[in-house]
Amino acid sequence: MLGNFSYKNATKLYFGDDSLKYLNDELPKYGKNVQLIYGGGSVKRNGVYDAVMQILKANGKTVVEDAGVMPNPTAEKLREGVRIARENNVDLLLAVGGGSCCDYAKAVSVSVHCDDDPWDKYFIRFEEPDCEIVPVGCILTMAGTGSEMNAGSVITNHEQKLKIGHVFGEEVMPKFSILNPTFTLSLPKRQMVAGIYDIFNHICEQYFSGEDDNTSDYIAEALMKSVIHSSLIAVEDPQDYEARSNIMWSATWALNTLISRGKTTDWMVHMLGQAVGAITDATHGMTLAAVSLPYYRFIMPYGVKKFARFAVEVWGVDPTGKTDTQTAEEGLAAMEAWMKKIGTAMDLSELGVTEDMIEAIADATIILDGGYKALTRDDVVSVLKASL
Amino acid sequence: MLGNFSYKNATKLYFGDDSLKYLNDELPKYGKNVQLIYGGGSVKRNGVYDAVMQILKANGKTVVEDAGVMPNPTAEKLREGVRIARENNVDLLLAVGGGSCCDYAKAVSVSVHCDDDPWDKYFIRFEEPDCEIVPVGCILTMAGTGSEMNAGSVITNHEQKLKIGHVFGEEVMPKFSILNPTFTLSLPKRQMVAGIYDIFNHICEQYFSGEDDNTSDYIAEALMKSVIHSSLIAVEDPQDYEARSNIMWSATWALNTLISRGKTTDWMVHMLGQAVGAITDATHGMTLAAVSLPYYRFIMPYGVKKFARFAVEVWGVDPTGKTDTQTAEEGLAAMEAWMKKIGTAMDLSELGVTEDMIEAIADATIILDGGYKALTRDDVVSVLKASL
Repeated sequence: MLGNFSYKNATKLYFGDDSLKYLNDELPKYGKNVQLIYGGGSVKRNGVYDAVMQILKANGKTVVEDAGVMPNPTAEKLREGVRIARENNVDLLLAVGGGSCCDYAKAVSVSVHCDDDPWDKYFIRFEEPDCEIVPVGCILTMAGTGSEMNAGSVITNHEQKLKIGHVFGEEVMPKFSILNPTFTLSLPKRQMVAGIYDIFNHICEQYFSGEDDNTSDYIAEALMKSVIHSSLIAVEDPQDYEARSNIMWSATWALNTLISRGKTTDWMVHMLGQAVGAITDATHGMTLAAVSLPYYRFIMPYGVKKFARFAVEVWGVDPTGKTDTQTAEEGLAAMEAWMKKIGTAMDLSELGVTEDMIEAIADATIILDGGYKALTRDDVVSVLKASL
Repeated sequence: MLGNFSYKNATKLYFGDDSLKYLNDELPKYGKNVQLIYGGGSVKRNGVYDAVMQILKANGKTVVEDAGVMPNPTAEKLREGVRIARENNVDLLLAVGGGSCCDYAKAVSVSVHCDDDPWDKYFIRFEEPDCEIVPVGCILTMAGTGSEMNAGSVITNHEQKLKIGHVFGEEVMPKFSILNPTFTLSLPKRQMVAGIYDIFNHICEQYFSGEDDNTSDYIAEALMKSVIHSSLIAVEDPQDYEARSNIMWSATWALNTLISRGKTTDWMVHMLGQAVGAITDATHGMTLAAVSLPYYRFIMPYGVKKFARFAVEVWGVDPTGKTDTQTAEEGLAAMEAWMKKIGTAMDLSELGVTEDMIEAIADATIILDGGYKALTRDDVVSVLKASL
């Protein structure tokens, strides 16, 4: 049943190996002061920083730097970004990097003109912005989160051992995003693979819920097949532009609200993975990979028809003469083989998780109930233990 | 190869059986004078007109009526609509109907504040709007054209025997569209089927061109499969809300620019069908259906790999032990069987075309070259003759 919904996504995208030049079309729309947000310096090594800076200067912008956004951006860093924006009367937040930088920019954007502490307001109390929002633009250097065309933001609080995402309203979406697949080519292979699994799991989270025949489910399967196809090429040759560009485009559509329209959604793999991230600071995509198979094998009996459909439509399993459960199990086995082939983390031990950390991770896990089975805390612990 | 492109689609959609109420959220954004655009009166019979009028009145709007938009809106009618808008200082063009009304509203929107004749300016000289554009909203009562979320407009000139579409820029897209699947339930079955084939062909036009491995191709296949699935349910029971709602949602995504991103596109079936429409005034979707199979069988050898992929991915043809040509032929045979099952027109004779009209239709056919083979005029004639 396709439920009732609204849809609007006004982010302007520029996609391709020449797309950075369109920054010249966007900059004149905003005021003079630009906060340039980036991470640990890879954008300096690969030349993207210089290219962006040149365009900013050519457009007469005053640039204030906001460097050092970490892979899991922290509440502390967020407060610093808000301070920088306030002190410099910033007119545009320009994130140059992966999903972490985009997520962080959005969290800053809704906090600059608000008095409350941003962590408490948006990630503990889940309030909506009630103040002016500073516009955000993204120049993406890693495919994965879909943050370039959605209103989501995930922030980590190490003190409180929490990693929490807030999906804001459409007014928080980036005004524009520049997607140049060549910017992703210098990424270390493990980061590329983490991004690929993040994309795949975003689709799974929206697919493994509700009934079977929605247009959204068909589109989800298409995106999964495209990601699988291109990932196998990209792990053989990370410089394959076609594969990397299709991965980048799939990432955007995997999480820009389209494939969740009219459906319930799950998101428990993200809740588990984010809890692992809160305790270990491990790479997001790899935390998802490490818990996915134990989680899906646990919930499969409660959504067996969808898992059987997944096996047939996404993995090409022949269902002839098999029960739905057998077909579904073959699908998950095919998914496991693919994950091994592309080189995702296959368990939590690889990420440094030990048995004595399980209770703390379970404590940090937010339990949602949109999937085929609402987990109990005991279920969370047993999925985590099975993931070790 | 995923080519370079930009993408923005800011139309706000309200989807579902309760979606009309959101007209109350949109109306306050616009001025007092609303031009209410509709067709032959079916919206009066099914109650949609009254429901819309009540909301307009409750929001204090002054309504000026613009009724009688025909299935193939004419240049003459367009000039009348422009006159109505000018005389009444219209602030919002509100189309209540199918794609014809939405297309027409967009053509009016770019013409109200321009001095030139709209037919000559936009459909003969293909100029872009250089004057203020009046905002458009759509309340959709028929699934098919995708006009509710794109910038396309097709206008017919009977005098000149031409039916021409112009795809404008993103600023011409409707500001909002209300998609209530229950509004489509009172449509005559033949109109529903024409709409379904229109959707399917929109996808084909963007799919049968270029190489194979783009994310866009995967999404196109997903939309085709969803349309086929739901169409078979809808022809058995046109009152099946789930099927009709998925058809409506697929229609929007079949032609809102997404699946053409990074690809070349064909559109020759539309060029042929529109020429048939210009001469006969036959229903748009049926003109497409009548020429599709002869056209695809004609071009198949030039794009055989894609047609074989179509057969396998969309129609479930088993390619084992077959040549690509054999697989492709089986796919087109499966498509033919589906068309017969849902009840599309299967040839031009059904639409009143006789052999002596072929030359005039060929004269009215605009030849594009984005598909697997650029047709010559002789090719056009032979495809049309094969369609009789």
